[in-house]
Amino acid sequence: MENIKVGIAGYGNVGRGVEKAVNAAPDMELSAFFTRRDPSALQTNTPSAKILRADDAASMQGELDVVILCGGSATDLPIQGPAFAKLFNTIDSFDTHAKIPDYYAAMNAAAKDTLSIISVGWDPGLFSIMRQLSLAALPCGSVYTFWGRGVSQGHSDAIRRIEGVANAIQYTVPIEEAVQAVREGKNPTLSTREKHLRECYVVAKEGADKARIEREIKEMPNYFADYDTTVTFISEEELQKNHSKMPHGGMVIRSGSTGENKHVMEFSLKLESNPEFTASVLTAYARAAVRLHREGKRGAMTVLDVPMSYLTPEDPAWQRQNLL
Amino acid sequence: MENIKVGIAGYGNVGRGVEKAVNAAPDMELSAFFTRRDPSALQTNTPSAKILRADDAASMQGELDVVILCGGSATDLPIQGPAFAKLFNTIDSFDTHAKIPDYYAAMNAAAKDTLSIISVGWDPGLFSIMRQLSLAALPCGSVYTFWGRGVSQGHSDAIRRIEGVANAIQYTVPIEEAVQAVREGKNPTLSTREKHLRECYVVAKEGADKARIEREIKEMPNYFADYDTTVTFISEEELQKNHSKMPHGGMVIRSGSTGENKHVMEFSLKLESNPEFTASVLTAYARAAVRLHREGKRGAMTVLDVPMSYLTPEDPAWQRQNLL
Repeated sequence: MENIKVGIAGYGNVGRGVEKAVNAAPDMELSAFFTRRDPSALQTNTPSAKILRADDAASMQGELDVVILCGGSATDLPIQGPAFAKLFNTIDSFDTHAKIPDYYAAMNAAAKDTLSIISVGWDPGLFSIMRQLSLAALPCGSVYTFWGRGVSQGHSDAIRRIEGVANAIQYTVPIEEAVQAVREGKNPTLSTREKHLRECYVVAKEGADKARIEREIKEMPNYFADYDTTVTFISEEELQKNHSKMPHGGMVIRSGSTGENKHVMEFSLKLESNPEFTASVLTAYARAAVRLHREGKRGAMTVLDVPMSYLTPEDPAWQRQNLL
Repeated sequence: MENIKVGIAGYGNVGRGVEKAVNAAPDMELSAFFTRRDPSALQTNTPSAKILRADDAASMQGELDVVILCGGSATDLPIQGPAFAKLFNTIDSFDTHAKIPDYYAAMNAAAKDTLSIISVGWDPGLFSIMRQLSLAALPCGSVYTFWGRGVSQGHSDAIRRIEGVANAIQYTVPIEEAVQAVREGKNPTLSTREKHLRECYVVAKEGADKARIEREIKEMPNYFADYDTTVTFISEEELQKNHSKMPHGGMVIRSGSTGENKHVMEFSLKLESNPEFTASVLTAYARAAVRLHREGKRGAMTVLDVPMSYLTPEDPAWQRQNLL
């Protein structure tokens, strides 16, 4: 079996999930962490792995087969991505959909001697695979993506920035009637409001004006104004007890026809931990990146460019016998 | 856009579905049919395409980009597959799971200068992709495949061979409690009987002993003995009216964990016409075969070896912008 030496850049929720997944993989060895903090202050669960400053990454060139970038899409990856791609094969979960073509171009230019698979995870990622596969199988049809029920970190953060809010968590919830209509092949036209609800659980600071907080949430443009939004005030204790996990999930559903016959394809995920599942997917694609690079592939790729057979340690003959 | 010249070998239900799908594809041209019947007796819906004897296929070498083999796995493909693979890029739906390794070896040996993607369709095919992708994302877990509710041609044929049976159709039905337990991540151990039911609708010949027919069906080894089977006698008229379509479908469900967190991935299909949907998938992979062959790939492949991006006419930049 291969022995793939892995580095992790960034040690937040996703980074810790990748650490678990790499340490559980029979063909991988976690060799290094890169951090923007003081390396001596970073406590990992893998004592055998080196801890370096991200700025010192060049010192590890040639010693790692792949680095999994666990930074965020807003500010981390646009800088970190191309910098690491010049030195190592990389995997990241860049998920600002509108900026993917630009990010792809930047990564493709940086990965001259390396290979970088961008926008890996479940959306973009597994859901992208399903949108493409279902388009291929049912060219005449319509595709719908629903997210949730799950925690949106961006929306939770937006609520926390409101004056008088001590803590908050936001769930994105698909509207059952809309999902049902799509599943039945009705090809409905759905507005933003008809697809998802937003449920907010908010801890107010003592003496804060709850009516104003609720109004500010519900009227917030882009984040909440276009949705039916519920706001429930709870205690910090209740938030910690009932809302400390990061579940998520969703569905990609395509309905279409061949002549007079209708068909529905559906892919769904129910995840207890969004960051841990994302990390697990990143780790599988890290294996693929190393194999593709060894075959001579260079530049940027996405999940749409990677054959399924590259994702698991088992060889293609085993896969044909057991999975096909 | 490319102009892919396609041949179809075999003009049964799947062959007719491929004809529809190829004629609807913007980048394909249906150029030839191959038949084992008398070519002058074959009526197709594509007057512009030539009709040749399968034995004369060599005369078309160099004029077709790919031939989609629409024969059956039991007797047609083991002969037809390697014979065509020596001459053309091919696609087939070989679905005898246990014999796939042998068939792969035979096709790989025949496809010296060509490329053959074998075992394409939905199972094997899309379901195989899901089994592999979900294994990659959740290495610690269990996968389950359910089929139906749908018509099994093999089981329907087996009933028709019983003395006194004029006509019959058999539906394979997944057992809801089993599906539910899997969806809830309970990882149940399920016997054959606990996963699927078999519903048989039988037209008896006049004066036939229905009690004996029912007993012979229910006791038939391999086909029915291991299942809870219902037998309903109906008239030929009712069979034609209510059971003349070939619906099918099913689910691949994998549940697994990352540390303490559980996750469930599910892929499901609801198909009004099994042969037409299969044909549509074959046609998408025909496009991929031509592209891979143009890039220099040779030999046998399966759906696990083909990147998603090869399956649709749209180019990768469009895919990244619109589907990722």
